[in-house]
Amino acid sequence: MEAATEPRGPQKLTNKGQATRARILEHAAELIYTKGVHATNNEQLRRAAGISGSQLNHYFPTKESLVLAVIEWQAERVLAFHRSERFTRFESLDSLREWAGFYLAYERSYQEGCSLGSLAAEIIKTDLDVRTELANSFEQWRDIFRDGLERMQGLGRISAEADPTRLAYLLLSAFQGGMLLAQVARDIAPLKAALQAAIDHVQTFAPPLTSQDHDPPPPY
Amino acid sequence: MEAATEPRGPQKLTNKGQATRARILEHAAELIYTKGVHATNNEQLRRAAGISGSQLNHYFPTKESLVLAVIEWQAERVLAFHRSERFTRFESLDSLREWAGFYLAYERSYQEGCSLGSLAAEIIKTDLDVRTELANSFEQWRDIFRDGLERMQGLGRISAEADPTRLAYLLLSAFQGGMLLAQVARDIAPLKAALQAAIDHVQTFAPPLTSQDHDPPPPY
Repeated sequence: MEAATEPRGPQKLTNKGQATRARILEHAAELIYTKGVHATNNEQLRRAAGISGSQLNHYFPTKESLVLAVIEWQAERVLAFHRSERFTRFESLDSLREWAGFYLAYERSYQEGCSLGSLAAEIIKTDLDVRTELANSFEQWRDIFRDGLERMQGLGRISAEADPTRLAYLLLSAFQGGMLLAQVARDIAPLKAALQAAIDHVQTFAPPLTSQDHDPPPPY
Repeated sequence: MEAATEPRGPQKLTNKGQATRARILEHAAELIYTKGVHATNNEQLRRAAGISGSQLNHYFPTKESLVLAVIEWQAERVLAFHRSERFTRFESLDSLREWAGFYLAYERSYQEGCSLGSLAAEIIKTDLDVRTELANSFEQWRDIFRDGLERMQGLGRISAEADPTRLAYLLLSAFQGGMLLAQVARDIAPLKAALQAAIDHVQTFAPPLTSQDHDPPPPY
């Protein structure tokens, strides 16, 4: 029963197999988010997911294959969340404030940081061959902000002088750096300040007075 | 010769002992910066620093004591660099541009990231008891920017409406987040965009026209 060394993507699995794989992934993602990659071992994962060692080995024959799948899992979640209706494609300053407000109210922000960024930072110097997947995920995340900023320009909500790519990197960097500083400080204040300032900067490109847009005061 | 389990600070060491300890630290810092904490082991460190196992154990009886000393070592270096004459206490927009220019030209920025931030991110979820030391270092770093911004206000270079603490966190977060994104992308572009935008934002608080300050165009 040890012939399971061929790579197995979800597409090759039965429904039951897919469910088992998904359950392992969910527990692996949670363990890694809480304790970090290095402190997460097979025994903890087997116990948490309620599976045997051979089952784990069947779906994820190496730690690299597991980490790669967790990266994909976390990236899918964070990208889907950013693409959800809640943020209306980031085509207004209010949607950026809604976004910041969510993460500032989320207590795991300063406890465990960003689910994808904290994982990336922990493993980027290791030999795990996962950099391309990480880079691709962060590019898609940047594009969500950049596309939103471009739509804001199209709608006249920010000036044509704004550089959507530069502003998108500011938002994503302030988020990632603020998350790290908040974790270290065990305090949300650094993330709050960084996101406020980044959104303040986007707002400097808004027309000073318009009739279209009576924004309420920011929620912080 | 194994009675060396009492904690030994540099102050208790002879000159020769201090030099040995400093040599170990320098090699440990370099190994950790390049390969990460988890991939750095005693054997590599002994070989790099040219010391015996009992010497290593004498100065750093545990991995925690070594990591703590490396954090102090990296923090001292990064804080001293930011306090150096080169940046003239960050009391002008030019000094911020000089600072960004340095890290954008430094090839290890996108290879290994920030010497302190990448280490912090790698270990913040572990059991190593080093969070207080990290938090203290980042607070001092933030204070360097905040104090500079307050001096800019005193000199009329930025408006009294600017919030120096918020802007200081923006600069430090954009730096840390941009460093992570640059490492992942193996490309300096994310850091460049994030720092440009953060400094652009500070500049929005500068008076539109002054006779005192003919800044040259930014170096990027």
